[in-house]
Amino acid sequence: GGRFRASEHQHARYNPLRDDWVLVSAHRVKRPWQGQLEKPPHEDVPRWDPNNPLCPGATRANGEVNPQYEGTFVFPNDFPALQPDAPEPGDSDHPLFRAAAARGVCKVMCFHPWSDLTLPLMSLVEIRAVIDKWAELAAELGASYPWVQIFENKGAMMGCSNPHPHCQVWASSFLPNEACLEDRTQRQHLSQHGVPMLLEYAEQEARRKERLVVENADWLVVVPYWATWPYQTLLLPRRHVCRLQDLWEGERDSLASIMQRLLIKYDNLFEVSFPYSMGWHGAPTGSFLEEDCRHWQLHAHYYPPLLRSATIRKFMVGYEMLAQAQRDLTPEQAAERLRSLPEVHYKQRAK
Amino acid sequence: GGRFRASEHQHARYNPLRDDWVLVSAHRVKRPWQGQLEKPPHEDVPRWDPNNPLCPGATRANGEVNPQYEGTFVFPNDFPALQPDAPEPGDSDHPLFRAAAARGVCKVMCFHPWSDLTLPLMSLVEIRAVIDKWAELAAELGASYPWVQIFENKGAMMGCSNPHPHCQVWASSFLPNEACLEDRTQRQHLSQHGVPMLLEYAEQEARRKERLVVENADWLVVVPYWATWPYQTLLLPRRHVCRLQDLWEGERDSLASIMQRLLIKYDNLFEVSFPYSMGWHGAPTGSFLEEDCRHWQLHAHYYPPLLRSATIRKFMVGYEMLAQAQRDLTPEQAAERLRSLPEVHYKQRAK
Ligand SMILES: O=P(O)(O)O[C@H]1O[C@H](CO)[C@@H](O)[C@H](O)[C@H]1O
Ligand SMILES: O=P(O)(O)O[C@H]1O[C@H](CO)[C@@H](O)[C@H](O)[C@H]1O
Repeated sequence: GGRFRASEHQHARYNPLRDDWVLVSAHRVKRPWQGQLEKPPHEDVPRWDPNNPLCPGATRANGEVNPQYEGTFVFPNDFPALQPDAPEPGDSDHPLFRAAAARGVCKVMCFHPWSDLTLPLMSLVEIRAVIDKWAELAAELGASYPWVQIFENKGAMMGCSNPHPHCQVWASSFLPNEACLEDRTQRQHLSQHGVPMLLEYAEQEARRKERLVVENADWLVVVPYWATWPYQTLLLPRRHVCRLQDLWEGERDSLASIMQRLLIKYDNLFEVSFPYSMGWHGAPTGSFLEEDCRHWQLHAHYYPPLLRSATIRKFMVGYEMLAQAQRDLTPEQAAERLRSLPEVHYKQRAK
Repeated sequence: GGRFRASEHQHARYNPLRDDWVLVSAHRVKRPWQGQLEKPPHEDVPRWDPNNPLCPGATRANGEVNPQYEGTFVFPNDFPALQPDAPEPGDSDHPLFRAAAARGVCKVMCFHPWSDLTLPLMSLVEIRAVIDKWAELAAELGASYPWVQIFENKGAMMGCSNPHPHCQVWASSFLPNEACLEDRTQRQHLSQHGVPMLLEYAEQEARRKERLVVENADWLVVVPYWATWPYQTLLLPRRHVCRLQDLWEGERDSLASIMQRLLIKYDNLFEVSFPYSMGWHGAPTGSFLEEDCRHWQLHAHYYPPLLRSATIRKFMVGYEMLAQAQRDLTPEQAAERLRSLPEVHYKQRAK
């Protein structure tokens, strides 16, 4: 009973981008945790390891030798989930047994020649080089493929099997589920409200402030009102931008800066290299380049699993898989916590 | 190029129950794995531990003492995500900031007084008692709540913090996302095809056989054509049944039997207590008891994370979170593997 308080009374919040709901039960964070503890990441990664296929000069699975690269380095994934030439599955003989062709390419992109660096420890110039390469790949693969998914799995907890700083780029001949979903919801919002959903959302959050984590002249990062992961964030431009490759010079610099500030805060939260999966969503490409995509607004999602400490994660399991995502602190609490953290990396602080 | 073969050529498959797609890239299972290894479950669980709040006679967080129960035992979750009396959030002041009331109850149900047992090691009579209690809770909570989610998180890998055999029951004042989704797709299928989707699907799979894992007179278990988790299964009745509480006596016995056979195969796959999240989906209840729910067919989903061994799981991360689920072996390969396993539990085999 009593007056509603989000931090005390469970409630559901609507995610307009995915057209679904999250259950917010912030009182749950009080319960003791006796379940699985995660291993903290190993801190002793060698800067250069000839047996690490992502290092300059190392030999990869296919026998190729990496160049002595000095900035970013892109190469084809040796075990690609998408290949350019898979034949069509035959016609379906029944509506409950439908298959479709899936073609594409999978690339790996190293951020830096050193294995012991991560994005938050890189310089602004180095992060800017990553952004430029992202934009270049998005444009290059987007010339023919309708969807180019750039994503980073950071940390062993997120299925990342190599500590060398890198991301992946999977381009596909089809719009994947999440792309279809966000295309539908953003299209509907523009047609109903006359303004792109995430442009309006960024304006609102800039004004409301309680879910802001960091901001600058071109960008803002919020814990979205509908966040499912404990410290999930959404990185948004203030200007209407459809795709990474449309970013201006100055916006690329300010993106490097805001990414660095966010990722330093993430690492500082539990004083650990913060695991997450992140990825970019922008307007579809390929034949969609010819179509009206004004309902789209470029954005990046960060999905970090940690909940209470470097070793206690949120499990999205039973209820979440079978029914609905559930979170244990409010987005406002998460944003406040992140906002209050220093912008100097804990490893670089004067002792 | 060449003729299409599902086990060699990546393709997408449609999930008619969730109205989305999965990317099947079966050639990927060949790649080496150098990422995180899971801890195998501890095998040394004591049968009775006075400090385990799920044991008979133990004291729980709220100070209550458990009875010396001999079968199943149900009690309120001491840290419930849903409480019956949360106040309404105020009216939304903007369409992008929508909250809704969420009320409910969360219960814990112990399957057995012994902490060192799991369902596959329990007798048919004991499993039958679990089924009866499920049906009872579904009816009791369903009298007022529209959705009663029964689910089991098994294994530390699935966020389960207590080895004692148990499941949870969360009843809510709203239809959660997955329920809404399955309601919509099943309703549409019945209206377009004149037969409940999962009834037709079970008939098809019984005939096609290649994705069957186990079957008996009343039930079948398949790796669904659209499975996302490596060894995901779907447990289906052959008869049109809307809810757990509608099952006949004989069907409850044959359900105990088919669950035991499936779960023994699961444990035998990697000779480990097989982790999973599972849960029941049936027609909504509460005020929906008055409505036409003939499009619904009762079913259970099993979502197990293991991929290659007791310590190598599938990570649903970057691409999966940002774009689309991807699997590394075909559903037919998974079904064949499960089908070929013995129906005697590896712990109970004569040495
Ligand atoms: O209630 P438990 O078992 O402690 O908690 C587990 O299951 C819940 C329901 O799926 C999840 O929300 C938790 O993240 C998980 O750790
Ligand atoms: O390609 P990787 O990094 O070895 O693999 C990782 O990312 C992929 C894309 O999200 C996932 O499909 C894998 O399950 C995960 O382990």
